[in-house]
Amino acid sequence: MRLATLRLGASTVAVRVDEHVAVEVPGHADVGHLLQDSQWASVARAADGPAHDLADLDPQAWAPPVLRPAKIVCVGLNYRNHILEMGRELPEHPTLFAKFPEALIGPYDPVVLPAHAGDAVDWEGEVAVVVGRTARRLTAAEAEDSIAGYAVINDVTMRDFQYRTPQWLQGKTFEATTPFGPWLTTLDAVDPGGELVTEVDGEAVQRTAIDDMVFGPAALVAYISQILTLHPGDVIATGTPGGVGHARRPPRYLAPGQELVTSITGLGTLRNAVVKEG
Amino acid sequence: MRLATLRLGASTVAVRVDEHVAVEVPGHADVGHLLQDSQWASVARAADGPAHDLADLDPQAWAPPVLRPAKIVCVGLNYRNHILEMGRELPEHPTLFAKFPEALIGPYDPVVLPAHAGDAVDWEGEVAVVVGRTARRLTAAEAEDSIAGYAVINDVTMRDFQYRTPQWLQGKTFEATTPFGPWLTTLDAVDPGGELVTEVDGEAVQRTAIDDMVFGPAALVAYISQILTLHPGDVIATGTPGGVGHARRPPRYLAPGQELVTSITGLGTLRNAVVKEG
Repeated sequence: MRLATLRLGASTVAVRVDEHVAVEVPGHADVGHLLQDSQWASVARAADGPAHDLADLDPQAWAPPVLRPAKIVCVGLNYRNHILEMGRELPEHPTLFAKFPEALIGPYDPVVLPAHAGDAVDWEGEVAVVVGRTARRLTAAEAEDSIAGYAVINDVTMRDFQYRTPQWLQGKTFEATTPFGPWLTTLDAVDPGGELVTEVDGEAVQRTAIDDMVFGPAALVAYISQILTLHPGDVIATGTPGGVGHARRPPRYLAPGQELVTSITGLGTLRNAVVKEG
Repeated sequence: MRLATLRLGASTVAVRVDEHVAVEVPGHADVGHLLQDSQWASVARAADGPAHDLADLDPQAWAPPVLRPAKIVCVGLNYRNHILEMGRELPEHPTLFAKFPEALIGPYDPVVLPAHAGDAVDWEGEVAVVVGRTARRLTAAEAEDSIAGYAVINDVTMRDFQYRTPQWLQGKTFEATTPFGPWLTTLDAVDPGGELVTEVDGEAVQRTAIDDMVFGPAALVAYISQILTLHPGDVIATGTPGGVGHARRPPRYLAPGQELVTSITGLGTLRNAVVKEG
């Protein structure tokens, strides 16, 4: 099952995305709100609200599936091939940092390069894990059940701001620069052997099997749940594989006029025009 | 004017804290909700809900003034004397990191040392700035107007988790370990030359004038507002001065049975028993 959030005029609504139509789940303004209902899966499966032909939907109608996650926990350095190719050892613990929800945009919204921070903007295609059930001090085996499903996210990063200071937050949380979606694919429908591909103007710049993570989704939920409680609708951005622009010689960054495309097998595709502010 | 949040049975309510009584501000479950009203100051000043004698209130009735800030932005290395005494240069940009709201506790709640992360728990007394009006791309001169006021916060930190990886988040956001309060003092009532004192069992371990910050409250709001929008109820923890336990030789950490007291002139006092989990 696929769950998304649509912008309809001034409001939004959670939808179940079937093969040809998006069916509204009445009473829920976004997937985040839907996930607060412990029966969210059966509620969504049974929903029969107004239906929207997918072919007729404006791309800008697609919002981030969870509009304002109460927590977005991001993971650094989490792909084995990338770490080993850099000559580093595999980490003992996941590197965690945060992003605030103001950073999120819909799956087809433009990435606007800020006038004062648009010169070193980089891509980071990632699997987003969305929490579906409260998780506190779980083992990895238990944690699996608290995952609602996966989506695609691109942790677009201002490298200059990221490295201004030892803490990355300020380069990671620029307003309206992180595409997320297009929908939440529930865990039962996820292809765990899927491939993540990031493309810039059609050139594949990142390509990795998502099962190459050092700390997989359940391990991350378990680890974070030792620190604090994860709640339904919280999002974990699980880290990016090799191929980012900043690590290239010379470095490459996003430029106005480009198209950034981030796909994961079975999870869908983010498609974002890169534009300059103003 | 002082604004706080009281726990009354199973619910909470925003209150104006007068000299002898706390007067309920009806219709607002916490100060965070009150601040969503652009007229919050006059609403609070005019409030005449039920009054509670301060002398009769159980210390555990005091909640964090903003129960669940949508953002808690923390600042590292921000006191001039501390940076200079460490032999470092003053930074050009503030170091920013995050804390999630699950970390917050009330001003008199116990700090519980987690069973699996209780061996290197350190104090960090700080001024908390609470946002009172939406702030986006402001100058420091403009930013002053978007500050609702100040409170006291202790950014209690698990040093072992903080330094497990290059990013501090996991040591900074342990569930229910960050005392915050006891109330929001509105900006007009703040003593800008106040002194911050952290005590452990009556021994002053941090003592600094709060005007010794490298980046003061308005400068921080201005800087962060270049990155993303600050909303009413968001909190900025402005950094801690010298005197933390981890920097001592040998290092000192919080131990069960101690009392942690954090005071700022004119802003009030956090008083927290340190207890071991279980």
